[in-house]
Amino acid sequence: MGKIMTLSPFAPKSLAHLPPIEGVRFATAEAGIRYKNRTDLLVAVMDAGTTAAGVLTQSKTASAPVLACRKHLKKGEARILVVNSGNANAFTGKKGREAVDVTVRHAAAAASCKPHEVFVASTGVIGEPLEAGKFAHLLGKLAEDAVPDAFEDAARAIMTTDTYPKVATRIAHIGDAEVTINGFCKGAGMIAPDMATMLCFIFTDAAIGASALQELVTQHAKTTFNCMTVDGDTSTSDTCLAFATGAAAARGQKPIDKAGSKKLKAFSDALHDLMRDLAIQVAKDGEGLSKFVTFEVGGAKSWAAARKIALACANSPILKAAIAGEDPNWGRVVMAVGKSGEAADRDKLAIWFGTYCVARDGERAQEYDEKTVAAYMKNRDIVVRVDAGVGKASATVWTCDLTHDYISINADYRS
Amino acid sequence: MGKIMTLSPFAPKSLAHLPPIEGVRFATAEAGIRYKNRTDLLVAVMDAGTTAAGVLTQSKTASAPVLACRKHLKKGEARILVVNSGNANAFTGKKGREAVDVTVRHAAAAASCKPHEVFVASTGVIGEPLEAGKFAHLLGKLAEDAVPDAFEDAARAIMTTDTYPKVATRIAHIGDAEVTINGFCKGAGMIAPDMATMLCFIFTDAAIGASALQELVTQHAKTTFNCMTVDGDTSTSDTCLAFATGAAAARGQKPIDKAGSKKLKAFSDALHDLMRDLAIQVAKDGEGLSKFVTFEVGGAKSWAAARKIALACANSPILKAAIAGEDPNWGRVVMAVGKSGEAADRDKLAIWFGTYCVARDGERAQEYDEKTVAAYMKNRDIVVRVDAGVGKASATVWTCDLTHDYISINADYRS
Repeated sequence: MGKIMTLSPFAPKSLAHLPPIEGVRFATAEAGIRYKNRTDLLVAVMDAGTTAAGVLTQSKTASAPVLACRKHLKKGEARILVVNSGNANAFTGKKGREAVDVTVRHAAAAASCKPHEVFVASTGVIGEPLEAGKFAHLLGKLAEDAVPDAFEDAARAIMTTDTYPKVATRIAHIGDAEVTINGFCKGAGMIAPDMATMLCFIFTDAAIGASALQELVTQHAKTTFNCMTVDGDTSTSDTCLAFATGAAAARGQKPIDKAGSKKLKAFSDALHDLMRDLAIQVAKDGEGLSKFVTFEVGGAKSWAAARKIALACANSPILKAAIAGEDPNWGRVVMAVGKSGEAADRDKLAIWFGTYCVARDGERAQEYDEKTVAAYMKNRDIVVRVDAGVGKASATVWTCDLTHDYISINADYRS
Repeated sequence: MGKIMTLSPFAPKSLAHLPPIEGVRFATAEAGIRYKNRTDLLVAVMDAGTTAAGVLTQSKTASAPVLACRKHLKKGEARILVVNSGNANAFTGKKGREAVDVTVRHAAAAASCKPHEVFVASTGVIGEPLEAGKFAHLLGKLAEDAVPDAFEDAARAIMTTDTYPKVATRIAHIGDAEVTINGFCKGAGMIAPDMATMLCFIFTDAAIGASALQELVTQHAKTTFNCMTVDGDTSTSDTCLAFATGAAAARGQKPIDKAGSKKLKAFSDALHDLMRDLAIQVAKDGEGLSKFVTFEVGGAKSWAAARKIALACANSPILKAAIAGEDPNWGRVVMAVGKSGEAADRDKLAIWFGTYCVARDGERAQEYDEKTVAAYMKNRDIVVRVDAGVGKASATVWTCDLTHDYISINADYRS
């Protein structure tokens, strides 16, 4: 099945414990979909009244589960989530749609709910038909056995080539009521004929209407998951779903239906912080990485322009290879800024590696000292700042370097 | 100065000899701009009446020589071309503009021409001030000594990390007159804080007006150089210039001023063929390549859509790493098609590796045989065909694979 992945240098020494969220319970199983001796099936059962929101891949070849989620999100109600790893059920044609239908039917029976209250996600090999028969019969029992205190198990069941599970938790207040937000996701590890697949699931006991939740998730995805890249390759399966059980209403939280409500500010901030945390964890587990790299672009005409410049840097193979080689190759930053197509003033452009200014006013900085900056490049966390010199907007993008291990993981898996 | 480049497996066993072109003469010198013991300065002197056309980088951080060419092209007249390798004179601020001014002044004196008849190009390190004083004084003597039969010397003087010079020649008829088109270029090899820089110079003795020549070059660049990629990184210095000396007029060629003229058809075809040949030679010398890869996309809504899909494939690190690993990873082709953002019918999409259909009607082809296709992947030339299933337009893009050597060349150059 390929080479053994080296643990990311950014793997946390110990995982945060995610407290239970009232109204949601988890169960996992070893269904043997592709992997042996590990869980590969996750079921999350949610109480009646749970609202749902989500953002999905923009790929024109989106997987069958993505299409089902997109359809079900229209009603914004959720009772059960079924996720499998090992097979992405992408590019599987009619068989793929049938596998989703079978899963939805069994899941709806297991949770005694309507089909539109079922959400599904798959990650792993693509182009290989997913045999829903391998696990659909397990769903009833799993739904029965589900328990609240199992976020880590849930996070592990959806991993593919991740070297560590990615979890985060936050607490916020809505009025006087304390609510919890938990999230976990899997990231961009690849082996076998797989592709980067980002799955993220967020749960909260807050009482929030589906459309308000949708507005927050859409807004925050822009500056979190959509500002993170490993290799610029959009998956067929990218899925970020959020579920609000509303259990906090029983503790006095007044349900909120408008994303713009002032009462939702702290919750919105906490949700953003959690999504940002998870996005960074994904970049920190990018295939074969040796360094975590942050591109901060300022002085741009708009946030979108700043993000595009930062992404041009973060997706440049030649710049990322230089960073892997601990080479403060700011010329390649100039190139990436130029190729982004966004406005930048060549004669005002400035670039920093860490706190060291390497270029200013369109040429090498007077104080540039190769040795000092080369020493900075030996750090594991690298920050590159760019001032485009044409405006006041800024954006941040997270990524990793491009190493020999990336090539080995993605080229040599058959050997 | 870094690691020794391995000769590309696609380097020609012997170089084509380019015949002299009436009206143009070349001289080269070892100016010691950056390299030792090799030529790094090229002068091409052209007869009065030579027309000029060109396409230049779209980079927002274009180099000083690019800006000068863009300005001088407006008049469409040329008498002298000066090219240096070793220093790109990019991101060098005011000093960069001054270096261009000094070069133009000395070159104009050397060729007894006006400043707008001078064209300049630089390739190599960026961000390092170019000392025009190192070579400007040589231009007069070089212009005097220039000889017609020196295309190979010219091609060698502009190389940076190319492992072989790239030359091509074609013959065409305009009416009854035979005309010659010669071209040479340098490609995407990188060492040191350099970036991919594509320079291409084309010379012909045909008598063609500047605007007609411009129209042909613009049109053909789209389907040749702009359909070739090594790593998706746009240089600050990309320059493709074409010069027509008009010497064929003395042999009876009636000068042509309209690109649409039927008499120009054979010339236009030959020019396109020459530019395509040179573009492919650049891809075949991509850094660290082991395979030359052609993506042919059909069934698209427009040529632009087909090209965008093909470029999404050709710029996908994970797909190119799979090809380096001789893995027929068609799932990654599906991903790249999806991420291109262009229309594709997921349920009609078809993919071939060579002549082997691997996917059809949105799922794995019935006849797909892993062993057969894996054996095909051992070839040095790989063709991947995609049918997007939504239209009739097609486009072809040339690239190379992504190997450990690419990482070594771009990451480890200091070691």
